[in-house]
Amino acid sequence: MENLENQINFLIEIDKLKNIERKTKIISGSRLENDAEHSWHLAMMAIILHKQANHEIDLFKVIKMLLVHDLVEIDAGDTFAYDTKGQVDKYNREILAAKRLFGLLPEEQGNELMELWIEFENKETNEAKFASSLDRLQPLIHNYLNQGDTWRKYKITSEQVINRNSEISKGSESLWEYAKQIINKSVDQGILSK
Amino acid sequence: MENLENQINFLIEIDKLKNIERKTKIISGSRLENDAEHSWHLAMMAIILHKQANHEIDLFKVIKMLLVHDLVEIDAGDTFAYDTKGQVDKYNREILAAKRLFGLLPEEQGNELMELWIEFENKETNEAKFASSLDRLQPLIHNYLNQGDTWRKYKITSEQVINRNSEISKGSESLWEYAKQIINKSVDQGILSK
Repeated sequence: MENLENQINFLIEIDKLKNIERKTKIISGSRLENDAEHSWHLAMMAIILHKQANHEIDLFKVIKMLLVHDLVEIDAGDTFAYDTKGQVDKYNREILAAKRLFGLLPEEQGNELMELWIEFENKETNEAKFASSLDRLQPLIHNYLNQGDTWRKYKITSEQVINRNSEISKGSESLWEYAKQIINKSVDQGILSK
Repeated sequence: MENLENQINFLIEIDKLKNIERKTKIISGSRLENDAEHSWHLAMMAIILHKQANHEIDLFKVIKMLLVHDLVEIDAGDTFAYDTKGQVDKYNREILAAKRLFGLLPEEQGNELMELWIEFENKETNEAKFASSLDRLQPLIHNYLNQGDTWRKYKITSEQVINRNSEISKGSESLWEYAKQIINKSVDQGILSK
């Protein structure tokens, strides 16, 4: 019963992810996306696109990774992909958040989530590489369909987008081919500067 | 490549789930919850609470079920749990939605999601029963922490809440015990009428 209380408290605490706004809008363009719905969308992408991965992957693990990968932002906030200053202390802020949040759970379970999060962050396993590819590809699609909303607002160039997203290829060569098409079309349409 | 185009089109289409509002607010109480973040939250509940299930379950399947279970509401809308009229034609509206949405995918994949959704709806397997328990328990917790927001707004009684939610026990006796505690506390606190 004590375990259940702690588990429910954790599940109540992570409801806050629904209030963490990202820099990218939802596809309708009506508002910014939040981390909870973003995480759901990535898990769906994993279900649908897993055969695009470069290597055989454990899809179940990829999905769990994607569901938990942004939880740390409850404390650490969303660090904008192109905010080079924010990126510097990102890991330190996030590790503190991970310790607090996963520490709410019964030990074994907290450790399991911590390991999943660290695996995602380290991007060394095939699962983490593929999960990370989806995390990069999704906002790219959103921006393409939102007339380059974030790119124009923050004056991001196609060179920056390519540098940031070329690591999609580490998880999936075919999805990186697809992403490059989107980037080229965005430049052609004038919604992303050269 | 044609498959990938269809898959991405499906993933773009389901972004609309982020605009489907439920009757329940997020726990902070600042706004209504949407179906995408609700689905994420349920998947997290499955990860954390799966040992509370009455029977051994395939957790991976439960998670996939929960991620897709509300997609049909993109076309059919959210039918309020206590809207007896809306419940009558709910299944017909939703089956049409399922055919359209899953029909966007390559056939084999569309069939897989259709089967998952039908399994969830039928509530016959242990996985569907447990997934359904979580789908009932979550808004109950939200309402308890939101001073009975939905209950008071729609004049729902504790008898209605018990009738609606007692089937939580089919997926998890222990979660139903927990739910009953919440219902009793809500009545004691005057946020749910007898």
